[in-house]
Amino acid sequence: MKITTAHGGGGKLMEELIGSVFLRHFSNDTLNALEDAALLDAPAKKLAFTTDSFVVTPLFFPGGDIGRLAVCGTVNDLLCRGATPKYLSAGFILEEGLDLETLERAVRSMKAAADEAGVAIVTGDTKVIEGKGGLYINTAGIGFVEEGVNVSAKNLAPGDVILVSGHMGNHHAAILSSRMHIQNHIASDCAPLNDMVKNLLSVGVRVHALRDITRGGLATVLNELAQSSGVCVELSPVYAPADLQVQGFCDILGLDPLYMGNEGKLCVAVHGADAQKALEILRASRYGENASIAGTVREGSPTVLLKTRSGATRAIDALSGEGLPRIC
Amino acid sequence: MKITTAHGGGGKLMEELIGSVFLRHFSNDTLNALEDAALLDAPAKKLAFTTDSFVVTPLFFPGGDIGRLAVCGTVNDLLCRGATPKYLSAGFILEEGLDLETLERAVRSMKAAADEAGVAIVTGDTKVIEGKGGLYINTAGIGFVEEGVNVSAKNLAPGDVILVSGHMGNHHAAILSSRMHIQNHIASDCAPLNDMVKNLLSVGVRVHALRDITRGGLATVLNELAQSSGVCVELSPVYAPADLQVQGFCDILGLDPLYMGNEGKLCVAVHGADAQKALEILRASRYGENASIAGTVREGSPTVLLKTRSGATRAIDALSGEGLPRIC
Repeated sequence: MKITTAHGGGGKLMEELIGSVFLRHFSNDTLNALEDAALLDAPAKKLAFTTDSFVVTPLFFPGGDIGRLAVCGTVNDLLCRGATPKYLSAGFILEEGLDLETLERAVRSMKAAADEAGVAIVTGDTKVIEGKGGLYINTAGIGFVEEGVNVSAKNLAPGDVILVSGHMGNHHAAILSSRMHIQNHIASDCAPLNDMVKNLLSVGVRVHALRDITRGGLATVLNELAQSSGVCVELSPVYAPADLQVQGFCDILGLDPLYMGNEGKLCVAVHGADAQKALEILRASRYGENASIAGTVREGSPTVLLKTRSGATRAIDALSGEGLPRIC
Repeated sequence: MKITTAHGGGGKLMEELIGSVFLRHFSNDTLNALEDAALLDAPAKKLAFTTDSFVVTPLFFPGGDIGRLAVCGTVNDLLCRGATPKYLSAGFILEEGLDLETLERAVRSMKAAADEAGVAIVTGDTKVIEGKGGLYINTAGIGFVEEGVNVSAKNLAPGDVILVSGHMGNHHAAILSSRMHIQNHIASDCAPLNDMVKNLLSVGVRVHALRDITRGGLATVLNELAQSSGVCVELSPVYAPADLQVQGFCDILGLDPLYMGNEGKLCVAVHGADAQKALEILRASRYGENASIAGTVREGSPTVLLKTRSGATRAIDALSGEGLPRIC
């Protein structure tokens, strides 16, 4: 069956769509009540709140799909404030002609990712627009922050060490390969990163900043952190951002993995003395097996510098034009 | 200037767009920090959470625009749980070719509506897709609910009286007129309804249910309430849903105002003994001057009945096909 504008009209067809797809898969008492807003417990005095829209094409790609992305992107943003993600909203914009089966596949994937990330989809909305069968998903998320947790892009300090939770660019390269019909084995890294954040915070590693490395890549994230904290970030000459396959893909196409988007990678700034411990914790955590140390923080103007092996220094700017559109 | 895909790429052009449009107009300390998620106070133990996407065309219409709609729709949904709206997220999906000036006009209108409704836009996201200059806005909202407040579609009880806060169909008729290039003086009713909800709850009117009367119209809302509470709703034979101009518009086009969408109208179910007091409060509240009593609740199978002046009884079903697409 194909989606028609009547599925967004507020009448019986919309009610059927909501029942047979959204409630069927996301089912929980709060959502099922179909109230204008979900009524929820607030178990802490501080909450984190974020939103993201997902417009990726193709909708399904090696390693993930728009549904998994829509959950992981928002969950990871909450984690980056040291929050425990708890509730998600889901706003669907469907283009006329979308296959119901395609929608349902994305919705099932959202549910699986939400279960993995420990969040419930508690409120939603559906609209139908003209078009050619596309699907856009917005999620907003709420997480709760324990007293004493203070993770912020403003908290980088000289002496901090920068870690990344894995290789750069796999998501970006997977999407690009799908769109360009390039055959390879690169898969998206799309994943919820609850495990590594929980592990870092629970053993008392002095985590100063966490950042999800998405659009714009690590180069852009580091520039934002340097700017927010007024410090200089130095990338290590031995830091190799990409795995062999993605590096090869980048070499052929003239891309730089430092500017490529990811959907399951964290940039972590910790007190220098805690760097080794943080590295071990990341490597022992789910999705963190390829974590590494990427650089250090020192006093200086807010820039990102790369010291090459030959001893030269190069400034790494934020992304200036555009990465691949629609990677998230 | 026109929006290009580079404005959504995560690089410097996007940073400029965010700074020159979103931060400039929405400016507050939380949003300006540009963190992955906003960190916020939770001043009560219960929160309300909701989301809505807005895909209306035209973007600007008599009485409102997509920006005002995007704030009012979500604020009103929070109010319908008896919550005090506090925080909004804003997710923008821009089609390539959108005029920057058009975007800015919508953003300015969002800010004005947010100020009127007492909410801050604390987190956001921007994506750019291919297209022909369209604009879609998702908002999610958080409000807080005081202890003892219990407003739910499940709470209708026999003896309750149903009030509506004003005339039906003005928003729907205004959008339809714009799209069909019909000249008249009908304006959308798009408005945040904080004042009437605050006034009803603060004087202790026994409010059982509140519902925003949007897509599907009053007929659909009443059917949903009847269904959720397992009661029969009887519309009064003297209840006249529309004002003269909208009724005339409906008569000419063969439309029924009971099925037309609104963006600033509440359906209120109160304990029968509080009905007159509730009516006075609604009429004295902002946007409630045309409030009236629409019907009563009695035991019976979950249906909506209209007793005509001649004494006959007719079942009023929920909307079955589609209303005008894209009214919200």
